[in-house]
Amino acid sequence: MRIKLTIAYDGTNYAGWQIQKNALTIEEVLNKALTKLTGEQVAVIGASRTDSGVHAAGQIAVFDTNSSIPAERFSYAINQKLPADIVVLHSEAVPDDWHPRYQDKILKTYRYRILNTKEKDPLRRLYTAHVSFPLAIDNMQEASSYLLGTHDFTGFSNIKSEVLSGVRTITALELEKVGEEIVLTITGDGFLYNMVRMIAGVLIRVGRGFYGPEKVKEILENRERTKDRLTAPACGLTLLEIRYDEE
Amino acid sequence: MRIKLTIAYDGTNYAGWQIQKNALTIEEVLNKALTKLTGEQVAVIGASRTDSGVHAAGQIAVFDTNSSIPAERFSYAINQKLPADIVVLHSEAVPDDWHPRYQDKILKTYRYRILNTKEKDPLRRLYTAHVSFPLAIDNMQEASSYLLGTHDFTGFSNIKSEVLSGVRTITALELEKVGEEIVLTITGDGFLYNMVRMIAGVLIRVGRGFYGPEKVKEILENRERTKDRLTAPACGLTLLEIRYDEE
Repeated sequence: MRIKLTIAYDGTNYAGWQIQKNALTIEEVLNKALTKLTGEQVAVIGASRTDSGVHAAGQIAVFDTNSSIPAERFSYAINQKLPADIVVLHSEAVPDDWHPRYQDKILKTYRYRILNTKEKDPLRRLYTAHVSFPLAIDNMQEASSYLLGTHDFTGFSNIKSEVLSGVRTITALELEKVGEEIVLTITGDGFLYNMVRMIAGVLIRVGRGFYGPEKVKEILENRERTKDRLTAPACGLTLLEIRYDEE
Repeated sequence: MRIKLTIAYDGTNYAGWQIQKNALTIEEVLNKALTKLTGEQVAVIGASRTDSGVHAAGQIAVFDTNSSIPAERFSYAINQKLPADIVVLHSEAVPDDWHPRYQDKILKTYRYRILNTKEKDPLRRLYTAHVSFPLAIDNMQEASSYLLGTHDFTGFSNIKSEVLSGVRTITALELEKVGEEIVLTITGDGFLYNMVRMIAGVLIRVGRGFYGPEKVKEILENRERTKDRLTAPACGLTLLEIRYDEE
């Protein structure tokens, strides 16, 4: 039986999703909880390898089990074995060959929260990036509009990224003022390594006036990867949702 | 020179405001930072002794110093010596005899956030109390309306509380649905020990149907203190603002 999980987590205290030596990751904590729960050696497969410090409200993962626990009851059962910063929101059975990364159509939505206040806010420090200089949201909105559609996003990817093609499609994008925050919500069929954080970083520079809004166009056209393109902090980023075409 | 500070903090990792043995408190961290900064033995006086785990967006404190740092620059200077979960938002000079607890008119505003969703939310766990059973907000609103005005709130105070009179005046109160949260914002000239958390606890029970809305009236009239009156968790509570009559 293959079980699909929808998972939320506070990434603050984790070195990201993917298992690694000498650092605690979400994947590892889930594997241990499921192994304890089922008595089987469980290894989950995640849809998105969120980076160190990045949060999730709707990560997807699957695992295989022979457990007699009904699929829908798994979420409750696992939550009893998980720390408070990782919560399984939903569990259901899926076909044995269903894979969270290989599907005809996958749409991921990320949210980036910028707190634009003079002083820092200790109550939001874990979930926003703080910018004390006033940001011109109209310029940021214009800049972000150039990202919509299909482009080669190589210029918005970390130089460590090693994918064959940087072409991705952004299907929806919204940059709005929510109280004291500027919130970017971006949906696409895939994101390169550090892509949303580099987009947020460039938009912040546009908001401060370091770049004109057209800078985004230039980066898309030049496809140049550079080390000094400010990558906005991980804590501002949340993987909001992953949708599959069958849904 | 007496300096007045406006302070925000995430109370998660502190045993409340007031200095105590064998546990880290906000007051202690502030004293140490100010002592380091000024080279003097500084002891702040706080307006509100927030409890262990309670947050603040507008705590007030004063201290005396002979430092040559201009009063308005203190906030910036102290923040360089404070951990990320304590931030001084504002600093200003006040008369030498100005005391944050003894003023003709003091109004304090607290906020209590209840997250009313089926599943827990790891991204809000530190700043809300989670209730998974659906709450009837209309009943909670009726119940909360009985708190407005001047009453003896002894029935809403912890049995450990040792004040002479339980009479306090609630000048403003709002209970509203904000997304998935039910948020209580309450302003008064003073609050007994655990009073807001006990109010929140009773309102949650009203929302669940354990009590009718009139239960609040009864508790006010009977003035009986009881151990089992559910005190809602500290993490849901934030000291929002303290206003003085001279402002």
